[in-house]
Amino acid sequence: MAISAEQVKALRDATGAGMMDSKRALEATDGDLEKAKDWLRQKGMARAGAKASRTAKEGIIATYIHHNHQLGVMVELNSESDFVARNDEFRHLAHEVAVHIAAAEPHYVRREEVPEEVLNREKAIFAAQAQDQKKPANVVEKIVQGKLNDFYKREVLLDQAWAKDDKKTVDQVVKESIAKLGENITISRFARFKVGEAS
Amino acid sequence: MAISAEQVKALRDATGAGMMDSKRALEATDGDLEKAKDWLRQKGMARAGAKASRTAKEGIIATYIHHNHQLGVMVELNSESDFVARNDEFRHLAHEVAVHIAAAEPHYVRREEVPEEVLNREKAIFAAQAQDQKKPANVVEKIVQGKLNDFYKREVLLDQAWAKDDKKTVDQVVKESIAKLGENITISRFARFKVGEAS
Repeated sequence: MAISAEQVKALRDATGAGMMDSKRALEATDGDLEKAKDWLRQKGMARAGAKASRTAKEGIIATYIHHNHQLGVMVELNSESDFVARNDEFRHLAHEVAVHIAAAEPHYVRREEVPEEVLNREKAIFAAQAQDQKKPANVVEKIVQGKLNDFYKREVLLDQAWAKDDKKTVDQVVKESIAKLGENITISRFARFKVGEAS
Repeated sequence: MAISAEQVKALRDATGAGMMDSKRALEATDGDLEKAKDWLRQKGMARAGAKASRTAKEGIIATYIHHNHQLGVMVELNSESDFVARNDEFRHLAHEVAVHIAAAEPHYVRREEVPEEVLNREKAIFAAQAQDQKKPANVVEKIVQGKLNDFYKREVLLDQAWAKDDKKTVDQVVKESIAKLGENITISRFARFKVGEAS
């Protein structure tokens, strides 16, 4: 089968293997990227655990420790340029976001990260609550949508009210920094550890 | 059906609901803990996101930031007593483990955390490599076991050589502290963020 230049590039990016080796691997595996990765590793031409994708993002990692080391937060804040990543205002925002996460206890950065099954379970509970109260179907639907919005405001970082000023959301605070600093800024991930709460 | 005191306790611990409400929820759901949680939430008697289990562990969260904020590590180190958690030597160990993780890039704390499918994929690659070299079956098996041990030493924190002294493993370093401080110490989890490497 014919292997495209895009496929070869994807495999090279994923494995660090050379161009000809990557092409040969894809030919040997009918263009299956995952199988081609294994093929290269089997031949010793690719490193185990090479990152599947390396984005070219700039930014910083910020941490915040609270309550006599009983609570810790780590967050990655991304910018487009190294210049902005070194800016004091950008670094201040990263710190403030970490402090916010410590206080507000979100579970996801953005709505799209909430797993389908979590969402379905929440919806089923909200619908059952509304039906218990003998509401008509169209009202039930509105109630479920309202409760779902409450769920997002509680669990999703960007939807949460900003801990230092609850008249704006975290998303709005980020957008203010985007306007000030003149380039896109994103919160890509966070971790929040409390002693004794490991799953 | 008869609901045991243990079941009621488990549901109370998980939801913060009262004893009678927990009993009623379990009776209504034939003793199914997950369904009983949903039942309580539906009736407004349990908080969403209440922790499934709160362990009574003591310890601290430690963080380490490296490379002009391009790399961050957060780790939870647990002790049995609050007294040990406040001890300087314990805190020093937590810091050193965080520094080690920054350098050695483990993916799991302990072997049991490596997912079955990752292990099977590694084993298949190692076996194919050995077969490529036309080794007899009993030798293939030994080679696979050896490569698997290499995999653990590379990916599993407790199996890694200690960054500051590669004559001992991280596990041995922890055991030395256990001997010195006189109570059990465990690394329960860590996160390692490098800018641009979010999945």
